[in-house]
Amino acid sequence: MMCDVVIIGFGAAGACAAIEAAEAGAKVLVFERNSGSGGASGLSGGEIYIGGRGGTEVQRAAGFEDQTEAFAAYLKASGGPCADAAKCDLYAAEAVDHFAWLKAQGVPYRGNYLAGKHIEPSDDSTLIWSGSETAVPFCDIATPAPRGHVIRHMGWGGGRPLVDILEVRARDNGVEVVTDARAISLIADGNRIVGLVVRIDNRERYVRADRGVVLATGGFVMNEAMRRKYCPQTFRINDPIGDKDDGSGIELGVGAGGDAIHMDQFFTTCPWIIPESHAYGVFVNGQGQRFINEDCYHGRVSRAMIDQPGPCVYLLLDGAHFAQPPSFARISIAATGETWEEVERELEMAEDTLSSTMNFYNHHAREGRDPLFHKRTPILTPLDQGPFVALELNFATSYFSFFTLGGLRTSIAGEVLDRSGAPIAGLFAAGRCTSGLPAWGHGYSSGLSLADCTFFGRKAGRKAAHG
Amino acid sequence: MMCDVVIIGFGAAGACAAIEAAEAGAKVLVFERNSGSGGASGLSGGEIYIGGRGGTEVQRAAGFEDQTEAFAAYLKASGGPCADAAKCDLYAAEAVDHFAWLKAQGVPYRGNYLAGKHIEPSDDSTLIWSGSETAVPFCDIATPAPRGHVIRHMGWGGGRPLVDILEVRARDNGVEVVTDARAISLIADGNRIVGLVVRIDNRERYVRADRGVVLATGGFVMNEAMRRKYCPQTFRINDPIGDKDDGSGIELGVGAGGDAIHMDQFFTTCPWIIPESHAYGVFVNGQGQRFINEDCYHGRVSRAMIDQPGPCVYLLLDGAHFAQPPSFARISIAATGETWEEVERELEMAEDTLSSTMNFYNHHAREGRDPLFHKRTPILTPLDQGPFVALELNFATSYFSFFTLGGLRTSIAGEVLDRSGAPIAGLFAAGRCTSGLPAWGHGYSSGLSLADCTFFGRKAGRKAAHG
Repeated sequence: MMCDVVIIGFGAAGACAAIEAAEAGAKVLVFERNSGSGGASGLSGGEIYIGGRGGTEVQRAAGFEDQTEAFAAYLKASGGPCADAAKCDLYAAEAVDHFAWLKAQGVPYRGNYLAGKHIEPSDDSTLIWSGSETAVPFCDIATPAPRGHVIRHMGWGGGRPLVDILEVRARDNGVEVVTDARAISLIADGNRIVGLVVRIDNRERYVRADRGVVLATGGFVMNEAMRRKYCPQTFRINDPIGDKDDGSGIELGVGAGGDAIHMDQFFTTCPWIIPESHAYGVFVNGQGQRFINEDCYHGRVSRAMIDQPGPCVYLLLDGAHFAQPPSFARISIAATGETWEEVERELEMAEDTLSSTMNFYNHHAREGRDPLFHKRTPILTPLDQGPFVALELNFATSYFSFFTLGGLRTSIAGEVLDRSGAPIAGLFAAGRCTSGLPAWGHGYSSGLSLADCTFFGRKAGRKAAHG
Repeated sequence: MMCDVVIIGFGAAGACAAIEAAEAGAKVLVFERNSGSGGASGLSGGEIYIGGRGGTEVQRAAGFEDQTEAFAAYLKASGGPCADAAKCDLYAAEAVDHFAWLKAQGVPYRGNYLAGKHIEPSDDSTLIWSGSETAVPFCDIATPAPRGHVIRHMGWGGGRPLVDILEVRARDNGVEVVTDARAISLIADGNRIVGLVVRIDNRERYVRADRGVVLATGGFVMNEAMRRKYCPQTFRINDPIGDKDDGSGIELGVGAGGDAIHMDQFFTTCPWIIPESHAYGVFVNGQGQRFINEDCYHGRVSRAMIDQPGPCVYLLLDGAHFAQPPSFARISIAATGETWEEVERELEMAEDTLSSTMNFYNHHAREGRDPLFHKRTPILTPLDQGPFVALELNFATSYFSFFTLGGLRTSIAGEVLDRSGAPIAGLFAAGRCTSGLPAWGHGYSSGLSLADCTFFGRKAGRKAAHG
């Protein structure tokens, strides 16, 4: 088999790479090991983190100006010690154009703004607060704006229609897709990647890629051996989100001389802000101490939970805010009481631990202050109307979904870089087989990964096509 | 140049590999980029973590039986989620023999036991508590025993004489040492490593190694680019311990198909237990909360500090325990007071934060309990005799020394493993260019790294010599 550009993996990153490579005039072959497109993108909410340049028309219509500098600053803060500043700057400058491109591909947006805290809209709304924009320290670093742009789709699960639209567009552009085809190894000619070996119907096929190979195979969350070696903290939790994300693209890239970075980083979340009133709750660890401003993004709060000692943390709610958590979250009621002291006793915590924490919290919340973690109103509110409840978020039994963030180091053009930082000729990558915009588990925001997949997928496809 | 076994790096790992390879009959060449032996081992305290099989004669003389199972369990707990169980089991079973071997090389031990908490003995004592053996959770996992065996040497810095002795032994065994020689690249013949290129006097020399090459080049703490990519949390602190530890051996090994694992892990410590009375102190973070049982190993406590939000943590002491910290620690007095409330105000913490923590702590300490973190007596003691002081351990300005723990994945025989877990023919590694016994920053104990370097250095040298 022969072509100009081979793309391995047909999730959002691979689809966007395919579209751009084909539009640049390349003959494109996509190999997908599954029987159809999707990957982890197809399991997602279809939300893309977009802003800058004064805001998308959706942001502006909702009254949010979003300057490029603020957007870039937020992206860098989200990447924390792992941030790739060049990627953040480039994406901040071009995200509005990227939004226009997505719409041009046929991705529909209703165009409205949905206030409040949501994991994903339960209707077909577009713009939501999907990160930690309004919370300390992010709000002090960058002027807040909502930036989660969700495909028009009723309820959760917009990732599937998003990939479907991209797939149609890729096929319309003449991209050839081979499913049930597993990439086995890359083929190098000297220092240049010129093709690969693919297993199809149990036979190995040799594929020549005259201009380049794009790895778009996803992370390694479904590969326990890789997690053990590179990201063992994920063994505290049990619900990987992925679709054959076994790290094969990372292995292929490293085998070709690439550099896998920030391999210890992972996203996790337990859906504790459902129902929405639970967003007003307070978290304490097994010592009865708070550990974060709970108005941060639910995933940032969840990631901090995993750092706590002991088997679980507790979400504390009062009668004004408690409702039954959804059963899929596997969050249980650990204790109830007419006072916080009673809850403390029922949890068998020492006297004056949890109750002290809550008395202190309520005392200051009444004054609109959180001297410990600087949680802000209106999420900051006293929890003083009994009865009181402690919900247990248990690392071993509650629903902590997660996926890996570490992967190949790439240039802003999508070239796979070797350990000295030089591009490997003919090899490109995008999405979660790379370390990209969502580089740091403690800074994740919803929509960052799809932003990274779609935007840098396009860059990789275009760069590959230009040979 | 031709030989049977080439060893790159002449610290403790390289020296032990050289001794064993030569004793197995191999013609051995050691290349060291510095002008003499030492490496990071030469900067160390010369302490080696040893136990098991009922205890060394030093342990037994001091009244400590140390069973192999307990020793192995402690090693695994120290490795936490990164532990290599096979290495822990093997070392636990053979460490007593290894101690005999060290003595046979000429490493002197006084043979006495020094009680108390010490970073290193200030005299020439042998056996100290050098980990978290008596602290929760370790004491519940493994019967405690002191296992830090320190070379007979007056005061700190026993690593230098340790390496000197090993160097003499290596040279006596016929090992040829070439200093100021920098390994540039490995040479493969098919899938086998058969030699390397070394730069000596600005000229490249080709070296043939008929039986194997042993990488013993240390970690990557002196390489800022590698730290940025793999271990960015270390940028919170500023005092790398190393001697040209730029990760070159890891790069060479990965370039040959090796697998670098747990690259995010690092050891750190701030010498807060000097003077010894400070070991009785309590740590709080910027929220005035305790975060660990302070009777753990000083490095485990220090590593937990780096996880705390904010720029610093505070060591709280009362008049019965405070003394001036040593100036090299760059620990400053942040606040003093006649009461903990006064200290709290001087630190500009909210009322009832630090003072509540200390009242709670003292209340339970008087009863011999620490309900939060299970610190144990006698380290657990009330801090209630004014005046009171808060010492500031600031991540940016205090002396937090650190080195990296991640590196090549190796077999228990010291073979470098590829990403599938298969040995790379002709390539071996030991010490901090590998991930070994000291795999996890939160579980480090003094002496683990030299134990790993010397023991698995020997394994690597012997395996290489057998071709």
